[in-house]
Amino acid sequence: MEKLSKNKIKWIRSLRLKKNRDLESLFVVEGSKMVDEIIANWSEHIVCLCSTDEAFESRFESYHVSIQSMKELSTFHSASDILAVVKKPYPEDSGAKFILAIDGVQDPGNLGTMIRTADWFGVDKIICSKETVDVFNSKVIQSSMGSLFRIPIAYTDLAVYLSESELPVYGALLEGENMYNSKLNSNAIVLMGNEGNGISENLRTIVTHPILIPGKGQAESLNVAVATGVILAEFAKP
Amino acid sequence: MEKLSKNKIKWIRSLRLKKNRDLESLFVVEGSKMVDEIIANWSEHIVCLCSTDEAFESRFESYHVSIQSMKELSTFHSASDILAVVKKPYPEDSGAKFILAIDGVQDPGNLGTMIRTADWFGVDKIICSKETVDVFNSKVIQSSMGSLFRIPIAYTDLAVYLSESELPVYGALLEGENMYNSKLNSNAIVLMGNEGNGISENLRTIVTHPILIPGKGQAESLNVAVATGVILAEFAKP
Repeated sequence: MEKLSKNKIKWIRSLRLKKNRDLESLFVVEGSKMVDEIIANWSEHIVCLCSTDEAFESRFESYHVSIQSMKELSTFHSASDILAVVKKPYPEDSGAKFILAIDGVQDPGNLGTMIRTADWFGVDKIICSKETVDVFNSKVIQSSMGSLFRIPIAYTDLAVYLSESELPVYGALLEGENMYNSKLNSNAIVLMGNEGNGISENLRTIVTHPILIPGKGQAESLNVAVATGVILAEFAKP
Repeated sequence: MEKLSKNKIKWIRSLRLKKNRDLESLFVVEGSKMVDEIIANWSEHIVCLCSTDEAFESRFESYHVSIQSMKELSTFHSASDILAVVKKPYPEDSGAKFILAIDGVQDPGNLGTMIRTADWFGVDKIICSKETVDVFNSKVIQSSMGSLFRIPIAYTDLAVYLSESELPVYGALLEGENMYNSKLNSNAIVLMGNEGNGISENLRTIVTHPILIPGKGQAESLNVAVATGVILAEFAKP
């Protein structure tokens, strides 16, 4: 197996920046569990694999990297032993009916967990506002636990998208109506807002059904990924 | 206001280790939002406050620290401008009826989010196994968003605790029964397991009601904090 050149190391490291990922339309996936998911779901998108195992063989363009170089490449505390450089997919709109819209979530762990949760509850598609953290950020990839490779995700102007959609728009708002007061079904868009500020001012007027998860204790709010889970569960419920 | 001495800086830094927090029965809280929660809820537990603001005044023992020293004290990327050293509380058992039991959760962010979620849904008390991450870890404190100071939390041998309780024990298990098949009420213990392995082997036999959150997509599992939210919501539902 060919050794990874210094130039290639530099190139892979450059993909840590969203700017470069956008420019090249590429991203990096680390760890054998995630690389297995990519091979299973998106093999035609794989550009190359890098492994610390000299005896590693695969049907993809593959490189050997020293453990030291892998430490330079990895964004994690303990470097993985394998990583993949992958072409970004262009998910097409396939008449999705159960949609999660995300307005400005900033924490990569929250976004990844929301994607994993959406996958569990059968969401067809995720639409993010342009202010939402990049889905190809390494922490988002990790916390999505592979679900990122199974749901189409797009970034767009949510105000335009939501206004043009014919589906009802349910928005999680602290001033919304108790979500258990109406029967929900998964022919809908569920809109979740930013961690600190909730749904943006300009989107609130587009929400057709403001909903609230009723609480009993003294907490001011729920974590956005937990709230997404509670709401999607109610929509997905048979 | 007195300047914080080198010895006191060393002492506060020593509380980063669970061993020392246990020995002294103290922990550290950072940031004005969290310190306000402590003052509101646990003022009698405050040992001292440290602030970077020279003009800071309070009714508690207070010290001035330079921004540089605060960077040494802080466990966060951007150092806070205030912190408190606080005595651990000893929550008494007050005949709680809606209990969250946590078996071996390792990620501080998950534990903090579970505490916040439990507070939202009116849980009376949280019981953790001794293998669960320390609740006074700074990341747990941060992600609990103050809820940590509102719910009694204890660490104990869960096998003994659950066996001796007269409440039904609902355990989240992938082989459990669809949770929507039975009417749930909040006179119960909800048991959640470790991120990777779920509920320990020796506790599974004590679970009286194994339950499952039905899924539709291809995700293998839900994040433990999200699963806790979905389950507690169903129990707390009017």
